[in-house]
Formats: sequence, C-alpha cells, structure tokens
Amino acid sequence: MTHASHPITLADIARHLDIAFDGDASRPIRGLATLKEAGPDQVAFLANRAYLKDLASTRAAAVLLHPEHGKNCPVPRLETENPYLGYARISQLFDPLRARDVPGVHDTAVVAEDAVLGEGVVIQANAVIESGVTLGAHVVVGAGSVVGADSSIGDGSRLHANVTVCHGVVIGKRVVLQSGCVIGGDGFGFAHDGAGWHKIAQLGGVVLGDDVEVGSCSSIDRGALGDTLIGCDVKIDSQVQIAHNVTIGDHSALAGCVGIAGSTRVGKHCMLGGGVGLSGHLTICDGVQVTGMSLVTNSILEPGVYSSGTGAMNNTQWRKNAVRFKQLDDIAKRLNKLEKNSRSE
Amino acid sequence: MTHASHPITLADIARHLDIAFDGDASRPIRGLATLKEAGPDQVAFLANRAYLKDLASTRAAAVLLHPEHGKNCPVPRLETENPYLGYARISQLFDPLRARDVPGVHDTAVVAEDAVLGEGVVIQANAVIESGVTLGAHVVVGAGSVVGADSSIGDGSRLHANVTVCHGVVIGKRVVLQSGCVIGGDGFGFAHDGAGWHKIAQLGGVVLGDDVEVGSCSSIDRGALGDTLIGCDVKIDSQVQIAHNVTIGDHSALAGCVGIAGSTRVGKHCMLGGGVGLSGHLTICDGVQVTGMSLVTNSILEPGVYSSGTGAMNNTQWRKNAVRFKQLDDIAKRLNKLEKNSRSE
Amino acid sequence: MTHASHPITLADIARHLDIAFDGDASRPIRGLATLKEAGPDQVAFLANRAYLKDLASTRAAAVLLHPEHGKNCPVPRLETENPYLGYARISQLFDPLRARDVPGVHDTAVVAEDAVLGEGVVIQANAVIESGVTLGAHVVVGAGSVVGADSSIGDGSRLHANVTVCHGVVIGKRVVLQSGCVIGGDGFGFAHDGAGWHKIAQLGGVVLGDDVEVGSCSSIDRGALGDTLIGCDVKIDSQVQIAHNVTIGDHSALAGCVGIAGSTRVGKHCMLGGGVGLSGHLTICDGVQVTGMSLVTNSILEPGVYSSGTGAMNNTQWRKNAVRFKQLDDIAKRLNKLEKNSRSE
Repeated sequence: MTHASHPITLADIARHLDIAFDGDASRPIRGLATLKEAGPDQVAFLANRAYLKDLASTRAAAVLLHPEHGKNCPVPRLETENPYLGYARISQLFDPLRARDVPGVHDTAVVAEDAVLGEGVVIQANAVIESGVTLGAHVVVGAGSVVGADSSIGDGSRLHANVTVCHGVVIGKRVVLQSGCVIGGDGFGFAHDGAGWHKIAQLGGVVLGDDVEVGSCSSIDRGALGDTLIGCDVKIDSQVQIAHNVTIGDHSALAGCVGIAGSTRVGKHCMLGGGVGLSGHLTICDGVQVTGMSLVTNSILEPGVYSSGTGAMNNTQWRKNAVRFKQLDDIAKRLNKLEKNSRSE
Repeated sequence: MTHASHPITLADIARHLDIAFDGDASRPIRGLATLKEAGPDQVAFLANRAYLKDLASTRAAAVLLHPEHGKNCPVPRLETENPYLGYARISQLFDPLRARDVPGVHDTAVVAEDAVLGEGVVIQANAVIESGVTLGAHVVVGAGSVVGADSSIGDGSRLHANVTVCHGVVIGKRVVLQSGCVIGGDGFGFAHDGAGWHKIAQLGGVVLGDDVEVGSCSSIDRGALGDTLIGCDVKIDSQVQIAHNVTIGDHSALAGCVGIAGSTRVGKHCMLGGGVGLSGHLTICDGVQVTGMSLVTNSILEPGVYSSGTGAMNNTQWRKNAVRFKQLDDIAKRLNKLEKNSRSE
Repeated sequence: MTHASHPITLADIARHLDIAFDGDASRPIRGLATLKEAGPDQVAFLANRAYLKDLASTRAAAVLLHPEHGKNCPVPRLETENPYLGYARISQLFDPLRARDVPGVHDTAVVAEDAVLGEGVVIQANAVIESGVTLGAHVVVGAGSVVGADSSIGDGSRLHANVTVCHGVVIGKRVVLQSGCVIGGDGFGFAHDGAGWHKIAQLGGVVLGDDVEVGSCSSIDRGALGDTLIGCDVKIDSQVQIAHNVTIGDHSALAGCVGIAGSTRVGKHCMLGGGVGLSGHLTICDGVQVTGMSLVTNSILEPGVYSSGTGAMNNTQWRKNAVRFKQLDDIAKRLNKLEKNSRSE
C-alpha cells in the first residue's frame, strides 16, 4: 500500500527535509517502512530506541535517524534532530490521494448556483454543496459529502467521502475531515415543562480553526447560542463527541471515543486519552493530560497528568475487590475506630 | 449565526408565548443571546440564578424572566413562570432551517415509484427513498439520506443530511434525526457452533415514537425477532448505541456516548448521563437517573440516582490508590482480623 | 416484520437444517418468533432453559429444540443438538433483504470505467465505485455507499446504505458492513515539533478477512505503514473504534462501543464486552474475555476473564465510597501500621 504515482528519489526526500545527503540521491523510492521490513526501494526511520536493535540489519535504501546513531547505520543515512518529525514530513510525499485529485466538479455533484468555488477545487461524485457555501482554493469534497447552506471551508481543506458539514459552519484552512464525521449537528438542548421535553433550536454554529483534523464518525455539535469553537491545530480522533458550546484550545489532541459535555472549556496543548469523559461546564487549563477512560467531573486548574478508574485484572480477583469497593466507607470508618482504640490503650 | 430570514418582532415573540408585553412590540428582533452578550436587536433570558448578576447591565431588546426578577430588569420584560421553557419555544422562531424548506423533490433524488409522499414533503439532493416507503406531510429528507424499503416516517419529521433509515422502520411524527445516525442496522446476533459464528438474521424492526430526537452518528439497531422500541418524546444525544430489542420509555433522555446492550428495558422519565453503559437483559424502572460513565450490570427497581466509578485525580496520587484497589479484598480481610484481635484482647 | 417474499414451508426449514421432520411439512411458515409469541404460521425455538416454562403452551407451527425436550413439546418438533445455531441458520431464510436484491447497476450510481464487477453484482442508487475497484460476484453496494480507489471486495459481501470504504482496502468474502461504518479512514498519527502537530500520512491499508461483520457507525482506521488486520469471522458491533495497525485474530467478537488503540494485537476467539478500552501496543492472547467497560492497560498473556471498574450503586452510598477511593493508599498504610503495632504488643 505504500506507493506513489510518480517516482520519488532520495534527492527529493533530502530536499523536502532540507538535509544534506551523500549517497546515491537518484535512487527511486517506492515508500516508507520500518527498519525491519524496509526493502532496498524504501526509506526507514529510527525514532524510538526500542527499534535500535533493527538498525544493523536493515536493508532500507536509507535511514532517517538522529546524528548520534549515524555511525551504526549500515546504509545511507538522512540525519535529523527529530526523525519522527522527519518521517511525518516525508510521509506526505507518498500519499496516493494527493496524486489523484483532479480539479473540477463531477457531473453528478450538486452545487448551488450561488456557491463560491476557489481555484482548483475538487468536488467528487454525488457530493452536495448547498446555497451560500464558499469553498477556498484547492478544497477537496469527497464522494457523497454534503456541505450545508452558508458554510465556508478554507483553502486546502479536504473532506473525505460521506462527510456532513451542516449549515452555517466555518472551517479553517488545511482542515481534514475523515469519512462519516458530522460537523454542526444540533446540540442536545431541551427544556422540560414538568411533563416532557421542548427542543431548544440550536442557533449557534461551529468554528474549526486552521489545521484541525477530525476522525471517522466523530461529531461536533453546533452551539445553542454562541458557537462551538475548536482552535487551530487541534487533532480529534475517531468516534469522538464534542457537545454544544465546547471550546478547545490550539494544539490539543483528543484520542478516540472521547466525550465532552456542553460548554466545557479545554485549554491549549491538552491531551485527552481514549474514552475520556469530561462533564459539562468545566474548565480544563492549558497543558493538562488525562489518561484513557478517565472521568473528569471537576475543573482542572493545574497542568499535569490526571487519571481515574482502575486497570483490568483477573475476574475472580476483581469480583472480590469490587464488592469491597461498596464497603469502602465502612472500612474507612472501622479503621478510624481501631486507630482510636489503639491510641487510647 | 442567530438569524432568521424574515423579520420577527417582539410582538411575534410575546404572541408565540401568549404573554402580555407592554414595550415597543414592533421592534424587529434578530435573534437570541445571553444577558451579557445580547445587543439591542436580541432577546435575552434569565433561567439560572447564576446569571442574575448580568441582568442589571444587559443591553437586550427584552428579557424573558420569572416575574420575581421583573423589578430588577433595566429593559422591557417578557415575564413567564418557566423562562427556560419560554426560551426553548421562541428559539424555534429563529431556526434558519425552517425558512429554507422548499417543498418538492430534488431532480437528483431517487424516489421509488410506489413510495407515498405526503403533502409538502421536501426531498433534497441525492436522497434515496426506496420501494414501499411512506412519508407523512411536511417530512424533510436531507441531502444524501436514505430511507430503506417499507419504512414509514410520520408527519413533520426531519432527517438531516446523510441519515440512514434501514428497511422496515416505523418513525413517528415530529421526529428529528441528526446527520450520520443509523436507524435499523442489524443487531449483533450470532450463534456459535464451537468453531465460529453464524449470523442470526435480524428480522425485527425499530419503532420510534412521536417527538423522538436522535443525535449525530448514533445508532439504533433493529430487533432480532420483535422490534426495538423507543417511546414518545425520548431524546437521544450523539454517539449513542442502542442494541437490538431494547425498550425505552416515554420522555427519557440519553446523553452522548451512552451504550445499551440487547433486550434491556429502560423506563419512562429516565436520564442517563454521558457514557453510561447498561448491560443486556436488565430492567431499569421509571424515574432512574444514572450519572456519567457509570456501568450498570444489575436491574434497578427503585427510582433514584445511581453512580459508579471514581473521578479523576492527580496521576501520582491515583497510581498509589489504584494499586491499592487490587489489594482491597486483602485489606478488608486484614481489617476484620485486627478487629477480631482487638475485641478478644 | 418477520416475513419473506416467497412461501417457505416446514419442509424447506427441515431440509435447510438437514433434520428429519414428521409433521405436516407442507405448512407455509411466515416467520420466527419466541415460544410465547409464535402463532400457528411461525416456528419457535427453545435455546435457553429459562424459556422452558413457555414450551407447554406454545402455539407455534413447530419448535426447534434439543432432543431432551422433545417429549414436552405440544406441537411438531425440529430436533437438533444446538437449537440456537439452528435458529441462526433458518433465520436467514426469512431475511427480506435477500429477496430484494436485483442484480445490476442503478442509473444514478457512479462506477469508474476501470472498475471490475463480478457476476450478479448489485449497485444501488447514488452509490459510488471509484477507479481501480474490484467487486466479487454477488456483492451488494447499498444506496449512497462509496468504495474508494483500488479497493477490493470479495464474493457475496454486502455494504448496506451509506457505508464508506476508503481507498486501498481489501475486504474478504461474505463480509457485512452496516450503514454508517467507515473502513480505512486515516489513523491518528501526528509528530510534534515542540510547537504543534505534523500529520503522518497513513500509508497502510485495512484488510478484513472472510465472514467479518462491522456494525453501524463503527470505524476501522488504516495503518500508518503496514495494514490494520481483521481476521476471518471477526464480529464487530456498532460504535466500535479500531485504531491503526491493530490486529484482531479469527473468530473474535467485539461488542458495542469498544475502543482499541494503535498497534494492539488481539488474539483469536477473544470476546470484548461493550465499552471495553484497550490501550495501544498491547498483546492480548487467544481466548481472552474482557467484561463490559473494563480498561486494559497491560498485555494479557493468559486466557481467562478480565474485568475492571465497579458496578453502579445508589448515588448517596457511592459518594461516600468514591471519596474513600482517594484515601485508599492512606488507608492501606494506616492498616499496615496498626498491624505492626498489634504484632509488637
């Protein structure tokens, strides 16, 4: 699967990374692979010491690595201070999607007459662009995707197939929306009259900053009054739910299955592990990390790492411990009493 | 984003709420906002005492509030016993979607010849209505949505873009289905033959009562034999999973990321917090609330509030406590022994 | 909803199960039902002793049951060692979808000129088949589904409506993909440069073995370099997230809302309960069961049942216990001290 539709050479790669290279720079490279699996037409990288053991025997065309490991490399090397970043940057050269984008509007796409399309826009089969939409230069709208009325999408953004952008959503530049995600569905707002529920029309929108990514099947709800705000360079994995009027600061990353309830504000450079849940109306300051599947019910005002829950264990042992959890307050009180008795003896 | 395509006046709003109003009723209103942010062409509301501090300085055109706060309001007032309900009701006046609905079937929509379409139906671009479908009056089917064979949708319901209603699903009146949701996918049923799995065809359907809402990317599976049953006025948030043959009573509300396993019965007026999981084959009686991310493995037969799990804490402290959880049964036994020794002294 | 478009007789059912039958084999059967609800034109089954009480009064046309219960059956019987498996097998006869499949490509579907379509393929309205795709014999692609460039789908597989298969995905035979699922969205891979994130192009693919099922709105991400690998006969429920480079062994089953982080390897014949979360880079051996909503942060190298968390309890009691969890390390230390004092007395 790692291939490209045009030949890329080691010279191209070195130039892309702005790195000097003194091997056979004209060698065509088919793709990237691990040190262990790379063949002579693939570039490998060493970004984690755990794989240092595979360096000596690699068959790669060249290896991207930190200068400190250069002397142990049996093949031509591409030296850089941050090899993982280097890998990220050259991975883009091999993305087959890029080569396939042919500017134009597919015959079966439906584009409103008043939509404004930037230069080089690609609109694929059966996509729908509703009235009042603005698409920036080189925006790609995948097959079956829908962009709702009055929304705008910035230059260089890509909607994969079957994405839904609802009405009145503002999307920045170079944003990537994976298939099945929904940006701007109604927030969950209802008033109770004592007998049942009355829907509150969700009149706000969603604003995604530049360089945001949203994973497959994730949903970001529109605001009730003001907008739901996702900062620049925020990375959101698959199956994530972001409720109405949430704010997420720049450069934060949310792993799969995270859920954030309404009006919570997450700071910049935060990292939420998979399955983390944040209650509504909280403030999470900059630089907070929450480990997987933790539940956060109070604001966090100090940077650091936060956790809840307990890891899995053998079910037989777990049953014994879990039943004791229900006695925990009693256990603590009995311990207090014993200590008191002990001290008074 | 809070706008409407036709001018709405304070008189319209007062009439909609059946409230007397003695200010300049002809003033055009552009939308709704909070007390703090409302400008002179917006209506604000006071539904939570926490915002009482913003009342004196509001610049709103009028404020919707309880009569007890009327005397402190510096601008014209709309007095009502339940301001939050009033807000819900007038929010509908400003929903821009409503104004955009133009009855008719888009050229690119595919509608089976034998489908029955009620008066004023709106079928948007690239939607698909399969054979045997019945759509009630004023039903809206968004772009890219699919309604499967033999399903029926009641008057006034709205499917946003890219919704999937599978075959043989029955949907009530005024139901709202957000983008990306799937109603009637197969339930998860397989029989094991000792070596592997054999699929059980899911022959039941799904019935959604009147006034149900289903959030973005949520899924409600069809029954194995009988139907999955969602009562009237049930509100379901985004990323929720409801398995086959689940029953949910009228007026219950499920927050984001809830998962309910097969054949569980949830009563009326229940509220499940975000991320709650219910095991299969349980009975949850009327009037039960479960707090966020709790796991329910036994039936609940008394109304009340139920919880599990523990909230997040600093990771360093959490590690120390979490490791003790695995010793909890041992701790309890040692405490028992100490108490016994203490009593025997 | 349990119906079929052509009359099925008891003889058809007995022949399908390869069972001798000595009642009126020509009786037409409308469908399947429980012992309690079956009418004289339905077949019932007894697969769980909990329902033995309903056997004596059943009105079913015939009952599928174990020979040991044959003597208690008041109506004609279909005896088999594994009645639940028998039910699974005959349920297929009544699936209304099968009868509706009419081979051919709908006028509004978009099929690339170079796509290769097997015999009897069904491509429904507004589906999109991109360049380089191969569809095996009798593949069904539902309305609005998209199959990305260079992907292949094996004989007899079915994509329900609004499914997304991204580019370069390999899908086996007899695979079922429920609506709204996404196979091959980008994995969540970014390198940090100290200031922000750089996307790592996800150059691997996804391979689904034969007889896999994927539930509604689930997502399986493509690999970063190598492929994400789902073995044969793996059953995946709705709202599940499988990250890049995960491997799942044959015959494993994942219930709703499971999340598996990157590069984790799950063995064969594993069962993950609803909402289970597995951290990244773990190894889970064959034959592991994990109960609902457990968090697994370490590899599991012994078959067995594993659990974490605690079940829901009354909120008032829960609050008292949950606060003690935060004192648990302190409680354990104090207990140690008391024991020490006690021994030294």
